[in-house]
Amino acid sequence: MKYYIGIDLGGTNIAGGLVDENGKILKKLSVPTEVERGENAIIDNISDLCGKICDENNIKLSQVEKIGIGVPGTVDSENGMIMFACNLNFNKVSIKPIEEKCGVSVKILNDADAAAYGEYVASGSKADSFICITLGTGIGSGIIINGKIYNGFNGAGGEIGHTTLIKDGVQCSCGRKGCWEKYASATALVAQTKAAIKNNPESIMSKETVINGQTAFRAADKGDETALKVVEKYIEYVAEGLVNVINIFQPKKVVIGGGISREGEPFISRVREFVYKYDYNKYLDKTEITAAELFNDAGIVGAALY
Amino acid sequence: MKYYIGIDLGGTNIAGGLVDENGKILKKLSVPTEVERGENAIIDNISDLCGKICDENNIKLSQVEKIGIGVPGTVDSENGMIMFACNLNFNKVSIKPIEEKCGVSVKILNDADAAAYGEYVASGSKADSFICITLGTGIGSGIIINGKIYNGFNGAGGEIGHTTLIKDGVQCSCGRKGCWEKYASATALVAQTKAAIKNNPESIMSKETVINGQTAFRAADKGDETALKVVEKYIEYVAEGLVNVINIFQPKKVVIGGGISREGEPFISRVREFVYKYDYNKYLDKTEITAAELFNDAGIVGAALY
Repeated sequence: MKYYIGIDLGGTNIAGGLVDENGKILKKLSVPTEVERGENAIIDNISDLCGKICDENNIKLSQVEKIGIGVPGTVDSENGMIMFACNLNFNKVSIKPIEEKCGVSVKILNDADAAAYGEYVASGSKADSFICITLGTGIGSGIIINGKIYNGFNGAGGEIGHTTLIKDGVQCSCGRKGCWEKYASATALVAQTKAAIKNNPESIMSKETVINGQTAFRAADKGDETALKVVEKYIEYVAEGLVNVINIFQPKKVVIGGGISREGEPFISRVREFVYKYDYNKYLDKTEITAAELFNDAGIVGAALY
Repeated sequence: MKYYIGIDLGGTNIAGGLVDENGKILKKLSVPTEVERGENAIIDNISDLCGKICDENNIKLSQVEKIGIGVPGTVDSENGMIMFACNLNFNKVSIKPIEEKCGVSVKILNDADAAAYGEYVASGSKADSFICITLGTGIGSGIIINGKIYNGFNGAGGEIGHTTLIKDGVQCSCGRKGCWEKYASATALVAQTKAAIKNNPESIMSKETVINGQTAFRAADKGDETALKVVEKYIEYVAEGLVNVINIFQPKKVVIGGGISREGEPFISRVREFVYKYDYNKYLDKTEITAAELFNDAGIVGAALY
């Protein structure tokens, strides 16, 4: 058996796992990121976590083939530099200290790319073109072509969430208006749910104290008219963006991840129906569309094995 | 010197050229497609054109390395089958008869892909990621990654013109509403120009008898207020779609072709300014954006050399 360590570096926690060559997680651990302590502390926390993961599995760091780190920002993989990651206050931070402290080769990649690669491994790594779309705080996306992550000549590509669904629509943090993620992310669904409750106080959702990405789906299950409309419209937003993705890439497979994808096949099947009705390709084989398999573990597996 | 023949198979004419290994067209000829005579006649016309091209250059068909054909439809390159091409009434047509009649190996590819590859060759074939956008009757697009045309697992990808700019906007022939090509193609510009003239009879454009893709640009040159607004809005439509392309691909280079791109640098520089202001990448190198170099010859060169 070969050992790999995959690290999912987040703004709040650093999740790490020992992974075998087949993408199976043998052990998972998590420590606080401690952004407030600065970049050196974060780098130390990552090194320490790698050591701890090995300790708990009774192996030595020297038995680990590689450490992979998924970073919420832009990376220069070749030179081992995290170019910037706003949630970590990172600006040109080298990962060499981790390599020196652990004595293991370290590779970094973008976290959405790591998650996409994890799902690609989980799906059998057979698709020559594979796209993972994560419906979360925003919309993350990872593009894998011929087994390799594609993100453009400068490493900043794959921002599918930042393509217009409605020009001059809802203001996006990227500076434009009407980006797909302003309509189809989990955050957008929560906003749409809240707006619907405000306009429809008779909805059973108005009794809820906490509104999240599940609120409308659960109320729709009970036949609530307002919730049914919210869910229907949200599915349309997700599917319209997916049609765009498919018209451009015609990937063999699209995997939908993020909290919303836990709604599973009842959700995915309605997205699929819309996409297959409206995509440009009417004659040839269609892209396979499924829910994610690994969810939060995708980043660890992808970082470990890329 | 090595000889290649590139064929640009259109609904009205078949354009063909003898091309050297550097992409230089040595001789160009064109014959009517004669769609009304059916698929066998068209296939014969292509073979005859290849013969004629060689005759006029005093070479033999046997001296030609390869014949490449750009087809307005979907192709199965591997098996030499044109799967369908609605403007030609083609449905599963084999190109083997051309191979047999000419005694030269024949390769087919999609015409937008051929044009993109031609522009890629003209640009020096150095960009590891290259996208050609053609603003014509619709919006054509060709994606070249690591020197290879990318069009998905089923060959139907690269339909960037059919991505939403405005969800639920102008009805598109593909079945959806609000596709980019309904706002940023040459056809769309003509429609926008006509609508503006109707609403602004004081515009100097109202004296024109023929309205085409140049009408608004020429009137804007003369300071016509209505035309200036049409051009400004059109540039915004082109650029918004380009920002989407760049946020997804971050290609090394984007080339804009089609009749509109003959407006050259005054047009391209305004598109570029908008794109660089609104694209997601604020820190790293930017995609190079230029006008096409080969225009109508791109399809011939690309088909010949791919």
